[in-house]
Amino acid sequence: MVNEVENQPPHQVVIVGGGFGGLYTAKALNSDNINVTLIDKRNFHLFQPLLYQVATGTLSPADISSPLRSVLSKSKNTKVLLGEVYDIDPQAQKVLMGSEAIPYDTLIIATGAKHSYFGKDDWETFAPGLKTVEDAIEMRRRIFMAFEAAEKETDPQLRRAWLTFVVVGGGPTGVELAGAIAELAYHTMKEDFRNIDTTEAQVLLLEGLDRLLPPFAAELSAQAEASLQNLGVTVQTKTLVTNIEDDIVTIKQDDEVTQIHAKTVLWAAGVKASPLGKVLAQRTNVECDRAGRVIVEPDLSIKDYPNIFVIGDLAHFAHQNGKPLPGVAPVAMQQGEYVASLVKQRLQGKTVPRFYYVDRGTLAVIGQNSAVVDLGFMKLTGFVAWLVWLLIHIYFLIEFDNKLVVMIQWGWNYFTRKRGARLITGKEAIGYYAASTNKQMINV
Amino acid sequence: MVNEVENQPPHQVVIVGGGFGGLYTAKALNSDNINVTLIDKRNFHLFQPLLYQVATGTLSPADISSPLRSVLSKSKNTKVLLGEVYDIDPQAQKVLMGSEAIPYDTLIIATGAKHSYFGKDDWETFAPGLKTVEDAIEMRRRIFMAFEAAEKETDPQLRRAWLTFVVVGGGPTGVELAGAIAELAYHTMKEDFRNIDTTEAQVLLLEGLDRLLPPFAAELSAQAEASLQNLGVTVQTKTLVTNIEDDIVTIKQDDEVTQIHAKTVLWAAGVKASPLGKVLAQRTNVECDRAGRVIVEPDLSIKDYPNIFVIGDLAHFAHQNGKPLPGVAPVAMQQGEYVASLVKQRLQGKTVPRFYYVDRGTLAVIGQNSAVVDLGFMKLTGFVAWLVWLLIHIYFLIEFDNKLVVMIQWGWNYFTRKRGARLITGKEAIGYYAASTNKQMINV
Repeated sequence: MVNEVENQPPHQVVIVGGGFGGLYTAKALNSDNINVTLIDKRNFHLFQPLLYQVATGTLSPADISSPLRSVLSKSKNTKVLLGEVYDIDPQAQKVLMGSEAIPYDTLIIATGAKHSYFGKDDWETFAPGLKTVEDAIEMRRRIFMAFEAAEKETDPQLRRAWLTFVVVGGGPTGVELAGAIAELAYHTMKEDFRNIDTTEAQVLLLEGLDRLLPPFAAELSAQAEASLQNLGVTVQTKTLVTNIEDDIVTIKQDDEVTQIHAKTVLWAAGVKASPLGKVLAQRTNVECDRAGRVIVEPDLSIKDYPNIFVIGDLAHFAHQNGKPLPGVAPVAMQQGEYVASLVKQRLQGKTVPRFYYVDRGTLAVIGQNSAVVDLGFMKLTGFVAWLVWLLIHIYFLIEFDNKLVVMIQWGWNYFTRKRGARLITGKEAIGYYAASTNKQMINV
Repeated sequence: MVNEVENQPPHQVVIVGGGFGGLYTAKALNSDNINVTLIDKRNFHLFQPLLYQVATGTLSPADISSPLRSVLSKSKNTKVLLGEVYDIDPQAQKVLMGSEAIPYDTLIIATGAKHSYFGKDDWETFAPGLKTVEDAIEMRRRIFMAFEAAEKETDPQLRRAWLTFVVVGGGPTGVELAGAIAELAYHTMKEDFRNIDTTEAQVLLLEGLDRLLPPFAAELSAQAEASLQNLGVTVQTKTLVTNIEDDIVTIKQDDEVTQIHAKTVLWAAGVKASPLGKVLAQRTNVECDRAGRVIVEPDLSIKDYPNIFVIGDLAHFAHQNGKPLPGVAPVAMQQGEYVASLVKQRLQGKTVPRFYYVDRGTLAVIGQNSAVVDLGFMKLTGFVAWLVWLLIHIYFLIEFDNKLVVMIQWGWNYFTRKRGARLITGKEAIGYYAASTNKQMINV
């Protein structure tokens, strides 16, 4: 039996996407009789949970990125391909990338999600989201350029607008962004300007629901809100953003409509699935939900195609408690490891039980020394929670690549409250005013 | 006397440029009866001697940059302005920036130099230079993208072109770039690809003169060439580049013309002074040399304008041994400190002797554990020289900002030969082929 298996040609697995889902699948598929091809349009894995620290000048992109090739260089059965898959042919069992057609026996799609403006795509120019390294650099440029512009501005109203920061969305990213910006303004940069008092900056965090961090227990949401207010963040829940245009955010709270004059608006509100989901749906008649996520079977394959799997943020998995699993790293990692073992077992002629997600808890950080952690059996807040958050993130970062540096960088920033990565790049600073709404002109 | 001085309104010093020259001047002018305004178009000081390590994926931009505001936050008499000075009015004693006119009693211009293509500006598209963070990110993108493209390329000739790297110019930057690329190909990435053997890559270093590192003693040039050849670099001296077009570098050695097929060409050949020098010349009739550098008096002021000084790469100072001082950091630093003390002494009614440059030596690094150091009284090569190089650079880096992280990062890279910052950013990788010659499309 074993010999038979060994005599067969290697089983071809194609993984699309090098995020948590795809990378964990590839690492777990390290097996002789399997050939793995991992396709991503970037040459690095990005540790997205820390992207907000790039956007706020604490870490550099490379600190939270690992070149896919070096992460997988020991997996000799794995080949990394740089490129974008734009179509899938499930009958011929091929994925299409550029002019190439790459054949597969088993296909795993893990292309994740991007931020969504609920159909108001023109808002993106004024309120960039945070999904890629490029997004983070652009946010960083806008945040630090706003303080520079305020320092030069003589008109008090415009200066106020430059010193007003609006973060839309009270999920983990929004909470973490708002906390970090408040610390920049009230601590890190307090001594750095001569014309403005950065502690007069206003940081607003807007959430449509009645509390921050909906996935958390209510008491933690309250705790998070309190900590943010201590940091100087103005939290507004039950607040809907009805319009975003240059310098003006229109909000609706109860039935009261108000306008906020802000030069810097950051989007942390919604995500939608990557377009490859829709393509897959057209080719296989599998269903997608309203966010564009592919509805998967209990074993993460798609209907009628037992050799095509969708995992991570792109998958809609509702076989556990009715509502789909959240788009967080642990879900993607567990799904990746599950599919890898399923593929291996199948090759041995064995079957595996359906996928179950083990929720080890949720966490969010609030500023430099406070966090909220919900481990289900235990809830933590404040400094202890922050330490837990720190250790968990360092643990996962180090798994990929030795990011000792990050630890030291954090330690350093924590004790000095410095922000070494406060670079305004992307264009010569002076081009900013003209170009601020023209992404084409951003050249780094 | 002292009281008199204190009763006068503060003396207004405007410094244009936050490089080594400008920053050292500002730091040394920390004095009660002087108001300093430092103007730069970037919000950070860049430690240019290490820029090649960003271009080759060892360090991140933030590792070698320090926010000007945090470097100067303790100098309460110093104001940092973000903007570009485009004109000078020496009669009204004002510099013009955007719509503002900033008055000065003493003006210090330290806007440095940018790379020059000796009039062949169209070469820049094919052979980017290395002066800014954006330049480094673009070089990094091209270097790592070339290996990715080679991995995908099936045509052996094109694959060869993707694996051919030409560095034009055998000065310190060219030597350091060529050495680092050779190490990437022959060590760092050896295990990372499946279709190509990165050790088949060709790294050519072209120098027009008869030896590398002309400023160094001849024996060190020979040593440097030998070390580079050990690393796998092909060094061609007495070689003139006569043309650069897409994928083809035409060279002339003796009277033999040959064409090199290379997809990646990096420019480290020449620099020209920043345009503000020419503007100054028009306004003051001061002379510029052929490289556009402003010819300065023995005290670094310009003819007929004792309150206008030019320092660093923008200055042509030939009062020492007839030929102008080289455009290196130590010259700029010493000139900055000299002008600062001159200004202070003048306010006390005192005079200072003319400027003398104290040459403490020159150094260049060759790969990860070899360098050449010429201290005049002593010449070092190999590992010892590398340690000296390392210590000197860390010393100066740390002076600005605590770049402990850099030390650890280096230590780490040195022992693991890892390159953590191998990020291809700037555009989705797949856009590369279409966009490689179109800077507009580079959006990070």
